[in-house]
Amino acid sequence: MSRNSSGGMGWIHLSEGGNISLQRYFVNEKLSLGMNIELDKEDSHHLFTVMRTRLKDIIELVDSQQNLWLAQVINIRSKKDGTVQVVEALGCPKVEMPVSVTIACGLSKNDKLDWLVQKATELGMASFQPLALSRDVVKWSANKQDDKQDRLQKIVNNAAKQSKRLFQPQVLPIKNLNQLIEFSSAYDLKVVAYEETAKQGQHTALKHSLTQFEPYQNILCVFGAEGGLAQSEVERLLENDFISCSLGPRILRAETAPLYILSALSYYYEL
Amino acid sequence: MSRNSSGGMGWIHLSEGGNISLQRYFVNEKLSLGMNIELDKEDSHHLFTVMRTRLKDIIELVDSQQNLWLAQVINIRSKKDGTVQVVEALGCPKVEMPVSVTIACGLSKNDKLDWLVQKATELGMASFQPLALSRDVVKWSANKQDDKQDRLQKIVNNAAKQSKRLFQPQVLPIKNLNQLIEFSSAYDLKVVAYEETAKQGQHTALKHSLTQFEPYQNILCVFGAEGGLAQSEVERLLENDFISCSLGPRILRAETAPLYILSALSYYYEL
Repeated sequence: MSRNSSGGMGWIHLSEGGNISLQRYFVNEKLSLGMNIELDKEDSHHLFTVMRTRLKDIIELVDSQQNLWLAQVINIRSKKDGTVQVVEALGCPKVEMPVSVTIACGLSKNDKLDWLVQKATELGMASFQPLALSRDVVKWSANKQDDKQDRLQKIVNNAAKQSKRLFQPQVLPIKNLNQLIEFSSAYDLKVVAYEETAKQGQHTALKHSLTQFEPYQNILCVFGAEGGLAQSEVERLLENDFISCSLGPRILRAETAPLYILSALSYYYEL
Repeated sequence: MSRNSSGGMGWIHLSEGGNISLQRYFVNEKLSLGMNIELDKEDSHHLFTVMRTRLKDIIELVDSQQNLWLAQVINIRSKKDGTVQVVEALGCPKVEMPVSVTIACGLSKNDKLDWLVQKATELGMASFQPLALSRDVVKWSANKQDDKQDRLQKIVNNAAKQSKRLFQPQVLPIKNLNQLIEFSSAYDLKVVAYEETAKQGQHTALKHSLTQFEPYQNILCVFGAEGGLAQSEVERLLENDFISCSLGPRILRAETAPLYILSALSYYYEL
């Protein structure tokens, strides 16, 4: 096994999930041993300029089938253009949640959505759905929606690499409540985190749903932004088979609540 | 019941944990009905200047016994000096974790500790222990330790108000590993989050400890900073009755891991 000089973390030590010190990149095709891969410009820049990876260094590649591979740098034509060769198959390590969790959130100000999607990616989120709700403290104007979505997708992609995911969670185009409800029909379990549920001291709905009605293929979790959900919005969701759930007795900020539910689901499914 | 004009959120609606729209303040004494309380300068400033609270408005007070009270503004001498009168007892709502969780972390750069203690306070942390570890990416120089601790304490205090806690978690003076180990003898359950445990696919230690050896009075959770814990540090902890636990199969950033464990503990104990 080749020394990984790029990370400065010593000898490669393989284990479930891959090696923590190796850089991981995603490719949109199915890989096999011996294949040569031209990394895209962005990954090449990161690998050769930011990480200063050199010829013969080893990286990790995740292919379109969520299989993990080791690849070796065999050609560096420029700081933005290089070739790696697939040298070892690491299979499909068990690092993804056994249930696909979509986090749908109202729009927050400042960089709160940025760090929410970063943390949620670390915590196993499968996709992120931005929501235009009546009490959102910011709006995404129509001509900026694509930029906003792209920005979040880039943050998600980087977090997916760093947290050693096997796919890059998708940031979906923004939806309003009607569109969300239509979209939600594809989900087995639909929950809305609503503070009134917590205030009434009813904290068991989530655990009850998980323990009584398994197995779920996918779960959709809806959260308001700083302003919360309007009662009329919650009622529309409840009429459409969402369950209202509490996330414990304390008041969580808009950006903290999704992290709670992802951690709780990971504890339930993965520990 | 008096109208709460300060929050602009309508009529007071009492429920478990208090009212989400009322400002909450902590006082260091035992309260009783009819008592007059002079708020300290900082709380007065927040109440009268930031929140623009007016005469006869209602606020929440938490006393030294973790009892919750309503109080009414009866005198405003200046924007930094006012008196409130205790007008209603709300008892001791069940908003605190049934187990006392101390989060001990290595020192991170930038504002990562700031937001970690804010989020951890929302998620129910009982106290925060800054740790000087060998791989910390920053050091707290001796003459700045008090300032750093005070800064974190202020963030914790604000988060405790906003998340409707019944006490303000304590930020403890920084400790090194030897001091931590001595300190740890007061805890029933001592865990260290160590990525090697996760890499070996052993994800059951935390759940096993919780479900097999309850009840615990208090839990100490130790985390490295960005650089992680040195193996020798982990070994010292394991020799001193810590258990090494995984927080699932994905690689969590230093500032995310404590939020995971607090959420998981809340799910286990509170939902």
